[in-house]
Amino acid sequence: MKCKICKKEASVKLKHYNLPLCEEHFYEFFEKRVRKAIGKFKMFSKEDKILVAVSGGKDSMVIWYVLKKLGYKAEGLFIRLGNGVMIDRTQEIIENFAESIEGKLIVEDATKYLYGLSTFEAARILRRSTCSFCGMVKRYLMNKVAVEMGYDVLVTGHNLDDEASQLLGNILHWQKGYILRSWPVLEKTHEKFVKKVKPLVLNYEDDIRLYAEMKKIPFLRETCPFSIGATSKIYKKMLLTLEEEQRGAILSFYMGYVREKDKFFKEDEEPVEIKSCEVCGYPTTSNVCYFCRSRQKLKVKLEKRQKAEG
Amino acid sequence: MKCKICKKEASVKLKHYNLPLCEEHFYEFFEKRVRKAIGKFKMFSKEDKILVAVSGGKDSMVIWYVLKKLGYKAEGLFIRLGNGVMIDRTQEIIENFAESIEGKLIVEDATKYLYGLSTFEAARILRRSTCSFCGMVKRYLMNKVAVEMGYDVLVTGHNLDDEASQLLGNILHWQKGYILRSWPVLEKTHEKFVKKVKPLVLNYEDDIRLYAEMKKIPFLRETCPFSIGATSKIYKKMLLTLEEEQRGAILSFYMGYVREKDKFFKEDEEPVEIKSCEVCGYPTTSNVCYFCRSRQKLKVKLEKRQKAEG
Repeated sequence: MKCKICKKEASVKLKHYNLPLCEEHFYEFFEKRVRKAIGKFKMFSKEDKILVAVSGGKDSMVIWYVLKKLGYKAEGLFIRLGNGVMIDRTQEIIENFAESIEGKLIVEDATKYLYGLSTFEAARILRRSTCSFCGMVKRYLMNKVAVEMGYDVLVTGHNLDDEASQLLGNILHWQKGYILRSWPVLEKTHEKFVKKVKPLVLNYEDDIRLYAEMKKIPFLRETCPFSIGATSKIYKKMLLTLEEEQRGAILSFYMGYVREKDKFFKEDEEPVEIKSCEVCGYPTTSNVCYFCRSRQKLKVKLEKRQKAEG
Repeated sequence: MKCKICKKEASVKLKHYNLPLCEEHFYEFFEKRVRKAIGKFKMFSKEDKILVAVSGGKDSMVIWYVLKKLGYKAEGLFIRLGNGVMIDRTQEIIENFAESIEGKLIVEDATKYLYGLSTFEAARILRRSTCSFCGMVKRYLMNKVAVEMGYDVLVTGHNLDDEASQLLGNILHWQKGYILRSWPVLEKTHEKFVKKVKPLVLNYEDDIRLYAEMKKIPFLRETCPFSIGATSKIYKKMLLTLEEEQRGAILSFYMGYVREKDKFFKEDEEPVEIKSCEVCGYPTTSNVCYFCRSRQKLKVKLEKRQKAEG
């Protein structure tokens, strides 16, 4: 098997493209797709101050690495969603990685906003779905840190499979609002809302894993223990079924969305009004944002508990 | 396991509804869904002259049976797409069934329009995809017979799984025109275009099979030998994957389409103009319809062959 470009012995065969490549040209191919996403969706420039949300998974580690390699001013943000050995270990891996790529790392502790609790514990007490509560806390804190520290743009590691399967789920449930907003770029629409972008949106998850492995980028292979049985997984499974029969179908589905979105869907009749939270000042559609309301409720519940326990 | 309605011993458990029913209430449930589709989409009334396209498969046999049972004036149409033992056997099964339900059956021979060839043979000579060519011939002849014999409406056996999977395929390929037109009713838009309806659109394929088996309605279990590997099957497979995890998801996806279609999708910018074919007078978007053009090409090809063979 020869590299399609240089005819040297190929190291990989990218199954989604049926493309054999040597190591060097695989890296080139992969990074070119990142550059394409950055350019096509006008994500950021070399002048921008970029903050990468780093969880320790392959996607966020790879995108931080690639952005640094491509010469962007990209720093990292790790949010501690709880305490304990797993979190400490994750932080250590990320800190070591940050050092190896000479990247500055910010660590934010979510538990200090949750009266010492992890997002999992807080969600349980509030009787909220773990995934959606934890996601909300993460999004709030990523935005808050980026705004407070003056970053121009926040990068997340969402990949093609993530975006395509989320889109499919939203279509299957006819969630037009979500469909219209699931774009690889969310522009700044409020003084305390940082622009958010997904530069891995054109890269298949398989290729990201391959890139991480070949580049020996360390990453956590465990998925979050609370995400088992998450409904989003079924849409990924459906798309992988399709991809098996129609090579490139996931990319083609997603690119179809990018191309057709404006011609396809009617705009929302009443666009949602964005206000400032009366408590924290960050953007919300209510008077008090969901993050602050959750904190208020959590406080009341914890006080009741303390009283009950004497 | 007790019938949900009368508490007698249940004969079936409808997996898509998690609903145990006795024989009698299953029939009632099933037929009610047919009546719901007829009413909701304003398909036809008891006064209308209805023609049911009957292939010998479970769907068309069942819908003909149910329409007769519900007191509609429904007659059958069988189109012979070729010659040979299989076609003869199919025709015989349908003729016997027609007799048993006291239904008039019209038989139309597609091969007489194709110079004696089957749709499969003609497609091969014309280098067309078998499924799409055969489908075009069927649609043309169903419409032609219905128009010439003065029927008000043509019924086909398309079921919920068919419609939902076709819709999914069209969405995955961003075929907005097909999405907008994939409604359970196609109205009469041309004097030689009969109204077309799909009264099984709210019934799961599994339930139709069950109904046919319990009612001992004869049907062919073989799928068309040329449809193996048809791309449409993959979308059904994807939806069945989803349904396994989210009971009722196929129905909910399709009903979402029914509910949201007008709010969701922008209209086509330039609606297609419908003309009359210069050769046969039936509706077309070109000057000569695809059926007549195919016949012309076929004639030329066959004449060339004859000459070459001396």
